[in-house]
Amino acid sequence: MASPPPAHPRRLLPLFLGLFQGALLLFFAFFVNYNEPSAQAADTNFMANQLYSIFPLFQDIQVMLVVGLGLLLTFLPRYGLSVLTHNFLLLNFSMQWALVLQGLLHHFHHGQVRLDLHNLLTTEFAAVTVLISVGAVLGRTSLCQLLIMATCEVPVYLASEWAIITSLGVLDAGGTITIHVFSCYFGLGVSKALFRTAQWPVHPKETPTPHSDLLSLVGTLILWVFWPSFIAVLCQPGDAQHRAILNTLLAMSASAVTTVVVSSLLERDGKLSPGHLQNGSLAGGVAIGTVADMAMPPVAALALGSLSAVVCILGFRFLTPLLVRKLTLQDQCGIHNLHGLPGILGAAASAMAILVASNNTSRLAVAGGGSLLAGLLTGAVLRLPCLPQPPEQLCFDDSLYFKIQDQNESLGPGGTAEEVALALKEHV
Amino acid sequence: MASPPPAHPRRLLPLFLGLFQGALLLFFAFFVNYNEPSAQAADTNFMANQLYSIFPLFQDIQVMLVVGLGLLLTFLPRYGLSVLTHNFLLLNFSMQWALVLQGLLHHFHHGQVRLDLHNLLTTEFAAVTVLISVGAVLGRTSLCQLLIMATCEVPVYLASEWAIITSLGVLDAGGTITIHVFSCYFGLGVSKALFRTAQWPVHPKETPTPHSDLLSLVGTLILWVFWPSFIAVLCQPGDAQHRAILNTLLAMSASAVTTVVVSSLLERDGKLSPGHLQNGSLAGGVAIGTVADMAMPPVAALALGSLSAVVCILGFRFLTPLLVRKLTLQDQCGIHNLHGLPGILGAAASAMAILVASNNTSRLAVAGGGSLLAGLLTGAVLRLPCLPQPPEQLCFDDSLYFKIQDQNESLGPGGTAEEVALALKEHV
Amino acid sequence: MASPPPAHPRRLLPLFLGLFQGALLLFFAFFVNYNEPSAQAADTNFMANQLYSIFPLFQDIQVMLVVGLGLLLTFLPRYGLSVLTHNFLLLNFSMQWALVLQGLLHHFHHGQVRLDLHNLLTTEFAAVTVLISVGAVLGRTSLCQLLIMATCEVPVYLASEWAIITSLGVLDAGGTITIHVFSCYFGLGVSKALFRTAQWPVHPKETPTPHSDLLSLVGTLILWVFWPSFIAVLCQPGDAQHRAILNTLLAMSASAVTTVVVSSLLERDGKLSPGHLQNGSLAGGVAIGTVADMAMPPVAALALGSLSAVVCILGFRFLTPLLVRKLTLQDQCGIHNLHGLPGILGAAASAMAILVASNNTSRLAVAGGGSLLAGLLTGAVLRLPCLPQPPEQLCFDDSLYFKIQDQNESLGPGGTAEEVALALKEHV
Repeated sequence: MASPPPAHPRRLLPLFLGLFQGALLLFFAFFVNYNEPSAQAADTNFMANQLYSIFPLFQDIQVMLVVGLGLLLTFLPRYGLSVLTHNFLLLNFSMQWALVLQGLLHHFHHGQVRLDLHNLLTTEFAAVTVLISVGAVLGRTSLCQLLIMATCEVPVYLASEWAIITSLGVLDAGGTITIHVFSCYFGLGVSKALFRTAQWPVHPKETPTPHSDLLSLVGTLILWVFWPSFIAVLCQPGDAQHRAILNTLLAMSASAVTTVVVSSLLERDGKLSPGHLQNGSLAGGVAIGTVADMAMPPVAALALGSLSAVVCILGFRFLTPLLVRKLTLQDQCGIHNLHGLPGILGAAASAMAILVASNNTSRLAVAGGGSLLAGLLTGAVLRLPCLPQPPEQLCFDDSLYFKIQDQNESLGPGGTAEEVALALKEHV
Repeated sequence: MASPPPAHPRRLLPLFLGLFQGALLLFFAFFVNYNEPSAQAADTNFMANQLYSIFPLFQDIQVMLVVGLGLLLTFLPRYGLSVLTHNFLLLNFSMQWALVLQGLLHHFHHGQVRLDLHNLLTTEFAAVTVLISVGAVLGRTSLCQLLIMATCEVPVYLASEWAIITSLGVLDAGGTITIHVFSCYFGLGVSKALFRTAQWPVHPKETPTPHSDLLSLVGTLILWVFWPSFIAVLCQPGDAQHRAILNTLLAMSASAVTTVVVSSLLERDGKLSPGHLQNGSLAGGVAIGTVADMAMPPVAALALGSLSAVVCILGFRFLTPLLVRKLTLQDQCGIHNLHGLPGILGAAASAMAILVASNNTSRLAVAGGGSLLAGLLTGAVLRLPCLPQPPEQLCFDDSLYFKIQDQNESLGPGGTAEEVALALKEHV
Repeated sequence: MASPPPAHPRRLLPLFLGLFQGALLLFFAFFVNYNEPSAQAADTNFMANQLYSIFPLFQDIQVMLVVGLGLLLTFLPRYGLSVLTHNFLLLNFSMQWALVLQGLLHHFHHGQVRLDLHNLLTTEFAAVTVLISVGAVLGRTSLCQLLIMATCEVPVYLASEWAIITSLGVLDAGGTITIHVFSCYFGLGVSKALFRTAQWPVHPKETPTPHSDLLSLVGTLILWVFWPSFIAVLCQPGDAQHRAILNTLLAMSASAVTTVVVSSLLERDGKLSPGHLQNGSLAGGVAIGTVADMAMPPVAALALGSLSAVVCILGFRFLTPLLVRKLTLQDQCGIHNLHGLPGILGAAASAMAILVASNNTSRLAVAGGGSLLAGLLTGAVLRLPCLPQPPEQLCFDDSLYFKIQDQNESLGPGGTAEEVALALKEHV
C-alpha cells in the first residue's frame, strides 16, 4: 500500500454519492408527496388494515436483505466489514435511485409522484437485483464500480420488469424470472466484460474459515426463515397468499434436506461442503417464485424444491469450474448456481404448469438474453480508466475500505487470529 | 482420521435421507392437497385475517428454532457449523416426517389430507421435541443416529400428545408438559441407553471459549425475545392470548433477573457463569406454558419465572454432576435443567392452579415415564452396529462432517485461532 | 486479581437484585391485575385487533433492544459477554422498576393497577433511556453502579416525560426529546460526576478488532431495520402511522448514504471508520422522531436524515475529543453524537415545522438541562464508597464478571486468538 492514491481516486466515492444525495433532495422537493388514500377513502379502518398486512412482510424482507444477505456474504473471512457495508449501501442507493426513476416515469404521466409503502416495496425489488448481481464480481471490484453497476442495472431492471410483466402479461409473484434470472445474467455479463482475459488462481484471502462459514450459514438461515414473506408479499390476499406461503415452506424444506443428500453424495468421504449448504438450502425459494401462488398439487412444490437444490449443487461442483475454464467467466459467489439455474427450473415449471411454453420461453429470453447483454455493456463501462479496480493484493481485504487497527499495535491482548498468525510467521 | 470409512458408512446418510425424500414425494403425490376453506366460506376477509394472525407468530417460531436454538448450541467452539446444520436438518426432517404421520392418521379417517398453516404449526411442535431431546447426546452422536432418533421420537410424541391433550382433556397451551417434559425425558432415556457404561472426563473440545459463549448468548436472547409468540400461537384469540403474552413476558423477565442473582450467589467470587445465563433466562418460558393463558394473578407468573430460574441453575450446579456420578447419565446441553425441572415446576403450578392434582400427576406420569421408556428403547436402537458413533477424538469437531480447510494451508493470513494454536504447539 | 474481594463487595449485586425481586413480587401480589377490557367491551374482535396491531411492533422493539443494541455494544472485543448481559439485565430491571413506579402513581389515583401490553410498552421506553445513558460510562463501571444509575434514572425519566408531554402538551411520537436527548444528557451528567478529574489515555482493551466491529455492525443493521417500528408504535393508526413509517425509512436511508459520504471525506485516504457507520446510519432515526407523523413534505425527512448523519460524524471526529480535552468529559460509546446532537436537530426541525419555537425550546431545556442535572447528582451517588469501580486493569474485560476458561488450560486446540497471543508473548 505504498502508493494507492494515484491508482485510487479516493474522492470519487464521496463526490459521486454526495452529488446523488443532493439531486435526490431536489427531486423530492419538487415532485414527491405522500399518498394518503384514506383522506379520500371512507373506510379508514380498511386502509389501516392494508398497511398492517404489508408492513410486517416489508420488515421481513428488510431483515433478509440487510442482515441475512449481508451475513451470507461474510464467508470471505477478511472482507466481512466490507461486504456488510457494500450490501447495505447498495441497497439504500438502489432504492433511492429506483424511487427517482419510478417517479420520473409517473411524473410524466400523472403529475406529482405519490409515495407509499407499496412504492418502496417495488424499489426494494429493484435493489434486490443489484445485490444479487454484485455477487458475481464481489471482492475484486471497488465500491465505486459497484455503485456505477447499480446505476446501470436499476433502469434496465425496471424496463425488463415492465416488458415481462406488463407487456407480456405474465404473473411472476416471487420474482423468479424478473429478479433472479435477470440479475444473475446481468451480473455474469458484467463479470465477463470486466475480467475479460484474466484467469486467476484462488486468491489466498478468498478461502473461508470455519468461523466465517458459520456466520455465513447464519445468514442463510435468516434468509431461509423469511423467504415466504418475500414470495407472499405481492400475492393476492386470501387463498393465493396462503398457497404461496405453504408452497414456499414446502419447497424450502425439500431444498434443505436434498442439499444434505446431494452434497454428501458428491464428496468421496461423505462430508458436507459449507458452501453447498449456504446456497442449496435457498434454491427452492428461488425456483418456487413463478408458481408459488398457483393452484397446483403440493407435491409439485416439494419436487421443485428438491430438484432446484440438485441443480444448484451440481452447478457449484461441475458448471462453475467449467465456466471459469472454458469461458474465463468469474462468478465469485456462484450466483449462477443459486439464482440462474433454479430460476430457469422455476420458469420451466411455470411453463409446464400453465402450458404456454412459448410465452415463457419468450420471457425467459427477455430476462436472460437482455440482461446478459446489458450486463456486458455495464461491465465495459466499469473498465473505464476513471474507475480503477483494487490492486490484486488488496482484493478481499477490509483494509482497502476501512481504517483497521495497525497489526503491531493490536498484537497485544486484543489481537485477532490473523494478526497473530502473521506475527507467528515473522517471529518464529 | 487414517481409516474412518470402515467405521463410518458414509453412504448411509444420503441413502436414508434420499429414500425418505422419495417416499415423501410419493405420499404427497397421492394423498395431500391444500385446505382452501375460503372457497367454501362466504367471508374471505375472515380467512385472510386468520392467516394474518397466525403467520407472524409462525415466522417468529421459525426464527426461534432455526436461528435462536441453532446459535444457542454453538457454545461448542469447534462444532458450530455442525450444530447449526444438524439443528436445521432435524427440524426439516422431523416436520416432514410428522406431516406424513399426521396425514396417514387423518387419511384413514377422512380420506384426502388437507394441508394448511395450522397443520404445519403442529408438525413444528413435533420437531421441537426432537430438537430439545438431541441436546442430551449432542456432539458424541453421528447425524445418522440423530435422524433415527427423530424417526422414533416423532410418532411417540404424536401419541403422547394425543393421550395427554385429547384423552385426558387437559389444555397445555405452551407445551410445558407435552413438549418440554416429554422431550427431556425422552432425550435422557436415549442418552442412558446409548452411553450405558462409559463415564468420560470432559472432552477437550467441549469447553466453550468467550467467543462461542457470546454467539450462544445471542441465541438465548433471540429465543427470549420471541418466546411469547411460541406460547401465544395456539391460545384462544382475545383475552386469553393477551394474558398468555403478558404472563410469558413477566415470567421471562423474572427469570432473567433471578438468574443473575442465583448464578452470582453460587460462585465463590460472585462471578457469573455464561452457561447459567444461556439457560436460566429461558427457564421461565418453559414453566409458564401450562398456565400462561389462565386467569390467575400476574404475581404468579413472576413467581413461577423466578422459581424456575432457581431450579434450573441449581440443577446445573448440583444435579447434573450427581446424575453423571450416580447414574452415569450424560446430559450434554443440560436439557434436564432447562426443560425437565422447570417443566415439572410448571405442571405443579398448573395442578395448584386448577386444584386437580390427580389429573396433572397422571399427565406428568404419561409425559415423563412414557417418554423415558420410549427414549431408552430408542437409545438401544441407536446402539445397533449399523449406526456407528463418531470416534472419541472426532467428537465435538466440525471436521467430522465438513470439508474444513487443511491446517497448514490456511495457517497463512486467514488462519483461525485454533489452527494458530496448533501450529504454535508444533513449532515452538 | 490477587485481592479484589475487599475492593469488590461481591455479594452486593445478588443482594440488591434479590431484594428488588422480592419487593416486586410483594407489590404485584397486592396491587396488580390484568386489564381485560374485552370483558366489558361488546366487540371482542376489536380488542383482538388492537392486540395484533401493537404486539408485532412490541416484538420488533424487543429485538432492537435485546439483540440489536446488545450486539452494537460488542465493539469492545474482550467485553462482549458483559455488554450483552448488562444490556439485557438493565432492560429487565428498568422495565420492572418502571412498572412499580407507574403502578404506584396509578394506585394512588385509581386503586388497583391494571396491566396490559400498552403499560409494558411505556416501561420499555423508560428502559431505553437507561440503555442509552449507560453508553457514556460503559466498561469502566461496575454492574452495581449501573443498576443504581437505572434506579435513579427511571423516576427522573417518568417525571420528565410527564412534564414534557402532559404538562407542555407536545407530541413527540418517536421520543426524540423525551428519550434520546434526555438520556444523552443524563448519561453525560453521570459520566462527568463519576470521572471528575481523571483523564485516561485509550485503554488497551478498548480498541475494536475487525471481528468485534463486524458483530457491532450487525447490531447496527438490526437496529436500522426495525427502527420504523419503534417510531410508529405509538402513532395514531392510519395515515399518521403510515407517514411515520415512510418518514423513518426515508430518514434512515439518507443517513446511511450520507454517513459513507462524510466518513470517507474526513479521512485523508478516503477510508471509512467502522464507528462512523455503526452510529451515523442510525442518526436519522433519532432525529426524525419529533416530526415523523406530521404532514410535512417527504423531502424534509430525507434532509433531516442526511443532516443528522453529518452532525453525528462531525461530533465523533471533532466534538468528542474536544469534550475530553476541555471538559474532561468521558463518553465511551459517543452517545452525545448519536443521541444528543441528532436529537437537538430533530427538536429544532420540529420547532420549525410547527412554528412554536418557544414551546420547543422549553421542552428541550427541560429534557437537556434537567436530565444533565439529574445525571450529575446520580453520578455523585455512584461515587459512594460502597459502590467501588472496577480496577483499571480489569476495565473492558469479561473476566471481571464471568468465569472465563483459564488461559493455559484452553491454550490447546480450543484457544482464542487473545489467549494465543498472550501465550506467544510469554513463550516466544
